[in-house]
Amino acid sequence: MDKSKYIIPENLMPPAWYNIQADIPVPVPPVINPGTGQPITPADLEPIFPMPLIEQEVSQERWLEIPSAVQAIYQQWRPSPLYRARRLEKALDTPAKIYYKYEGVSPAGSHKPNTAIPQAYYNKISGIKRLTTETGAGQWGSSLALAGSFFDLDIEVYMVKVSYHQKPYRRAFMESFGAKVFPSPSGETNAGRSILEKHPESTGSLGIAISEAVEKAVQSPDTKYALGSVLNHVLLHQTVIGLEALTQLEMAADYPDIIVGCTGGGSNFAGIAFPFLGKQLRGEEKAIKFVAVEPAACPTLTKGKYAYDFGDTAQLTPLVKMHTLGSGFVPLGIHAGGLRYHGMAPLLSHILELGFIEPKAYAQLGCFAAGITFAQAEGILPAPEANHAVKGAIDEALRCKEEGVSKTILFNLCGHGNFDMQAYIDYQAGKLQDYEYSPEEIAMALAGLPVVAG
Amino acid sequence: MDKSKYIIPENLMPPAWYNIQADIPVPVPPVINPGTGQPITPADLEPIFPMPLIEQEVSQERWLEIPSAVQAIYQQWRPSPLYRARRLEKALDTPAKIYYKYEGVSPAGSHKPNTAIPQAYYNKISGIKRLTTETGAGQWGSSLALAGSFFDLDIEVYMVKVSYHQKPYRRAFMESFGAKVFPSPSGETNAGRSILEKHPESTGSLGIAISEAVEKAVQSPDTKYALGSVLNHVLLHQTVIGLEALTQLEMAADYPDIIVGCTGGGSNFAGIAFPFLGKQLRGEEKAIKFVAVEPAACPTLTKGKYAYDFGDTAQLTPLVKMHTLGSGFVPLGIHAGGLRYHGMAPLLSHILELGFIEPKAYAQLGCFAAGITFAQAEGILPAPEANHAVKGAIDEALRCKEEGVSKTILFNLCGHGNFDMQAYIDYQAGKLQDYEYSPEEIAMALAGLPVVAG
Repeated sequence: MDKSKYIIPENLMPPAWYNIQADIPVPVPPVINPGTGQPITPADLEPIFPMPLIEQEVSQERWLEIPSAVQAIYQQWRPSPLYRARRLEKALDTPAKIYYKYEGVSPAGSHKPNTAIPQAYYNKISGIKRLTTETGAGQWGSSLALAGSFFDLDIEVYMVKVSYHQKPYRRAFMESFGAKVFPSPSGETNAGRSILEKHPESTGSLGIAISEAVEKAVQSPDTKYALGSVLNHVLLHQTVIGLEALTQLEMAADYPDIIVGCTGGGSNFAGIAFPFLGKQLRGEEKAIKFVAVEPAACPTLTKGKYAYDFGDTAQLTPLVKMHTLGSGFVPLGIHAGGLRYHGMAPLLSHILELGFIEPKAYAQLGCFAAGITFAQAEGILPAPEANHAVKGAIDEALRCKEEGVSKTILFNLCGHGNFDMQAYIDYQAGKLQDYEYSPEEIAMALAGLPVVAG
Repeated sequence: MDKSKYIIPENLMPPAWYNIQADIPVPVPPVINPGTGQPITPADLEPIFPMPLIEQEVSQERWLEIPSAVQAIYQQWRPSPLYRARRLEKALDTPAKIYYKYEGVSPAGSHKPNTAIPQAYYNKISGIKRLTTETGAGQWGSSLALAGSFFDLDIEVYMVKVSYHQKPYRRAFMESFGAKVFPSPSGETNAGRSILEKHPESTGSLGIAISEAVEKAVQSPDTKYALGSVLNHVLLHQTVIGLEALTQLEMAADYPDIIVGCTGGGSNFAGIAFPFLGKQLRGEEKAIKFVAVEPAACPTLTKGKYAYDFGDTAQLTPLVKMHTLGSGFVPLGIHAGGLRYHGMAPLLSHILELGFIEPKAYAQLGCFAAGITFAQAEGILPAPEANHAVKGAIDEALRCKEEGVSKTILFNLCGHGNFDMQAYIDYQAGKLQDYEYSPEEIAMALAGLPVVAG
């Protein structure tokens, strides 16, 4: 029979993460300290992150070694499998070859532990005892909870209050790994208390939860903050996905013409794309069409502006240059909660500006339909976020069929849907709707005005 | 670093399932037709099962080839990883070596697809269009739904009504793979309708659901019935677990002194144990201590009688000789729903009688505590069923510590807990209780009298 799964032998596992900053032709614009208007220094970041992560954030080195303690844990589920989607190809009757890298094999069910593990490790060796973070849908909080249990760190998760109540299973998962989970706004911080005083009924937001987590981190020298996407070091850790895929496609004697991923903060897309883009930038391999798929409910890459903006709603973070809908923008409440971020990773935004990425925005109904098609063919029910990449890959495969060409498509299936069944129930019951922002609404968002849609 | 994960190279994947009937010193007692009092014939089973599965059910051949179409699908998640639980060993401070085989990597999250896939395949090549089955907690129904989508078979699942309403996520999972799921008792069958007439408020039982599924199967020549445990051919398919583990332990240059599994109908325990027991029976390897862990709420192996009994509550099935609490016995509503079966696989019961297995019964609180210990050390949150095996392995490891001996323990982690978070919430909230049946209650059950406990 033809092979459908490619697993790398142990001695070919990536020994280092790939840092695309070494290869991009124009440097990424600096992060700005809003107080001084000057580029931030490592010292500015020290109250929040440990020095090894700050060094990775600004490093220009091409390869950054994966510590053996991190390798030992990666090994539990990595290499993640690369599959040839033969049954999906047949179902679509396409001449295209479709491969997918499956990150749902991690213990938390997504790509997030790829960075949670090294973040916990670097904090541990820096003498840190406790990490704080925020979580919306819960994928990131679950991954950091897991990492905390591996490295014996206390984990405090500020979970957006509406999710805290709507997703008790995600919360229970984090608590099973020993994490403390607080509904945000909480009474644990000044930021939380001041919001609760004014709005006792507040259901919270990611912006508020970040404020709480950062406030708790900067209060104690043994506590730091951890972020699950957007930052350079997070994208760096995720390149393990693409590096493995390079080796696996070599085993399959193939190379992609098209790479598809979904984008929220940008880390899973960067993780699969950057190692291939690096080869292209260094002139070692042909150019690839990189398709970044975002939700129409949060169209940062397709409709945002490229400008300096804050990373959080409360405007506590440094200013980063990125594609943004404005730090006050609250995306529609779609089920792909992991893609609901007002901005985009600065590195990915920069690379879009350089012309290396084709962004696309999809509404959610088509993505769920694609997810069901994929599940019935390949046997894996994707997370709602991952359905965006599935839909992107299926559309490329159908275009190949129309044009009668056989192209090689690779996409990242960043997580399974085991914790997202309510989304599928709502979809099957016809309760979900599509919404596309009007040009007027986008203009309002970019002007910093509130947009009430849907 | 020391290795913690063992993955078999492709060319060493098991080419055949192992049939322990070829090696047991005394043949297993025949299945009896309750109408005639005589051993059943293949023709008796033909309305329910396709001939290739009936042939496997009665085969005395030692090795039964795994068809290449089944291998191709197994390959999607098999070989399942064998892990050395180094962090758990450290947490327990035990001199024992603990290995676990992790079946939660399957797309349905448990070992059940190991038999759902070949059952679907043999029905498909026998010209069958539709399979019916029952499901309680939903693991088996999910696995058959998955298998149906791979082989283009219609799947009808009769789901115990109380679970249908309590576990909407399991139902949505099955429906996402195209299965039809009916709350049982349903209006689809005579059996269901007659119960609804008498008891419109009936919340159903596995016995009723089996009656409905069997009734629907025997009505149409293009429809058959599928069972997820207990039968010889089901245990046969699960031996892929133990066969892989044999090769993986060879890679680790180790061999178990103790093998632990949990038992409901008996298939996952048999799957990991039989290939090792076969080596012992053939004199090729040393004797192993086989520990079968069952819930105290359904103590078939430890307190049941070894006798001919029906496989279902409605007494529609043939009579099989097994350890049973009586076909009318309704186990306590513990969260390990997959272990709530009144009987035990005839093959496993027979082997217990021959003295090759040590059964143990555990109450649920200790099993949940063991599961949390395991999760925090190893990063995987087990299903409540699997927690029984975890607790059994931990107890053996702690005994090694007491006695100061280093033994090699292998256990089967048969599934993850992603769909069982409510159980963990109830456990953490102190809502779960332990219950042990009194000798009087067991005597009543064995006499066919109703036992109302807890």
